Amino acid sequence: MPDTQSFTIVRVDSATASRIEDTVVVEEPLEIRVNNSSLGVTMRTPGDDFDLAFGLLWTEGLIHSAQDVGTIAYCPDEHDPGLKNVLNATLVDKEVRITSNRTAWASSSYGVCGKSTIDAIRQKSRRIRSAVAIEYDTLIELPDRMRAHQVNFNRTGGIHAAGLFDMSGKLLLLREDLGRHNAVDKVLGAALRANVPIGDLVLLVSGRLGFEIAQKAAVAGVPVVASVSAPSSLAIDLAQEIGMTAVGFVRNRSVNIYSHPQRIINGISKHSDRNRESHSNPHD
Amino acid sequence: MPDTQSFTIVRVDSATASRIEDTVVVEEPLEIRVNNSSLGVTMRTPGDDFDLAFGLLWTEGLIHSAQDVGTIAYCPDEHDPGLKNVLNATLVDKEVRITSNRTAWASSSYGVCGKSTIDAIRQKSRRIRSAVAIEYDTLIELPDRMRAHQVNFNRTGGIHAAGLFDMSGKLLLLREDLGRHNAVDKVLGAALRANVPIGDLVLLVSGRLGFEIAQKAAVAGVPVVASVSAPSSLAIDLAQEIGMTAVGFVRNRSVNIYSHPQRIINGISKHSDRNRESHSNPHD
Repeated sequence: MPDTQSFTIVRVDSATASRIEDTVVVEEPLEIRVNNSSLGVTMRTPGDDFDLAFGLLWTEGLIHSAQDVGTIAYCPDEHDPGLKNVLNATLVDKEVRITSNRTAWASSSYGVCGKSTIDAIRQKSRRIRSAVAIEYDTLIELPDRMRAHQVNFNRTGGIHAAGLFDMSGKLLLLREDLGRHNAVDKVLGAALRANVPIGDLVLLVSGRLGFEIAQKAAVAGVPVVASVSAPSSLAIDLAQEIGMTAVGFVRNRSVNIYSHPQRIINGISKHSDRNRESHSNPHD
Repeated sequence: MPDTQSFTIVRVDSATASRIEDTVVVEEPLEIRVNNSSLGVTMRTPGDDFDLAFGLLWTEGLIHSAQDVGTIAYCPDEHDPGLKNVLNATLVDKEVRITSNRTAWASSSYGVCGKSTIDAIRQKSRRIRSAVAIEYDTLIELPDRMRAHQVNFNRTGGIHAAGLFDMSGKLLLLREDLGRHNAVDKVLGAALRANVPIGDLVLLVSGRLGFEIAQKAAVAGVPVVASVSAPSSLAIDLAQEIGMTAVGFVRNRSVNIYSHPQRIINGISKHSDRNRESHSNPHD
């Protein structure tokens, strides 16, 4: 299934009204089943669906390695055999029960099931102790590098992306989806399936850095999570608590570092304890 | 509870690294209960929570008027009496059963539970037959008018908004939230509670126009839904099918009209059947 679709639309500007073809991101539901029990449905851009499923199962805590999944396949639709909107994953550990579909699923969509679950996530997330660091000059280049590799963005103007970079700024994996959370699950799932060690990488997201994105990064053990946009209060709280470096507003050659700035180097970490008066060059 | 929070962060640009106070959008979970059964949890920006609940119950089809809700109140938290993260609504119609929490809830977060549910939504949505129309020159002003009234955007750079405008471009209601869907539920819920007739208004959203936003607009019976950003394929399909005017990319004094352009007037509707070659002035 193509991940974009063309529509005939009316484009209007102050001088003209004309009928043109416009390319739009495709949105379709995907139902994910685990051992033939429905885990839930996500509205996603078709493509990389197995990555999405692996990523979601990982960040939901149902699997911890790619080997925990025995088989994964689309379920045939009896009315429309070509339709690939349902997939089933069987887990090697038959003891994994989908005790509460809703808890697991809500956790991927709206993040959490109440305050106590937030506390549980915080307590469950291992402390991130990675000593890796990225240079400021490299960090600020990442959004342009990701954008340059986004197949669909330029055609549609409406798709999110998540990328995994190493500390030298090399893009290792990139996935796109109209949903921010799906893009993150896809890229994390792709890393899990390809055995890419994630503990020394930067996760860059094209949208806001909300709690759910931070939580997925935390479960995956990413040391640096960066966003071109704003973080939420709860995302910062989580990052501060578990030792993850959270960076926002990576744009126009500046960044905001919300937690654990020691992983952003060349002037930043050594200046991080100074006050606003400190006016020093990070390129020193 | 305030809807923004301050953090001490490290801000770095090419010349300086400094520690500053930054204002961030607050994110907290809200559990919504109906007749003391949990409907689900949303990550939201605290504030206008009752509007959010009314809007969600409406767009989920559990209520059809404000009078369908008997009482609504926060549930006290035994550990933290000041915490307002759980609320309960009692419905006047005791026959309304939350048969499947998950179905209802998934519909608000990820939109739908499979293809058959999408078909059901399409079939359930009444056809929108409103003959209202908005002038192109008015439509393109709406994003700036909404932004001018956004209390939190300028402080944080990271909050979504949804606004209801009349056809003269007057902003009637505006709500903000870090979640796009929450902002829409809040503003629709506010309209329901205030008995604002919605059948001749424009709903403007600050983010993408995905299926779930289109679905909420459809259930509420909004004739024109507009976005500053991109629509998805499924949102366009729904709008075309039920008679709703869907407009995207309202920015830089141009718009894309994806369905039913007759509600955008002054040159557009009369030119909408011409080809690209037609180069005419909508201000004529």
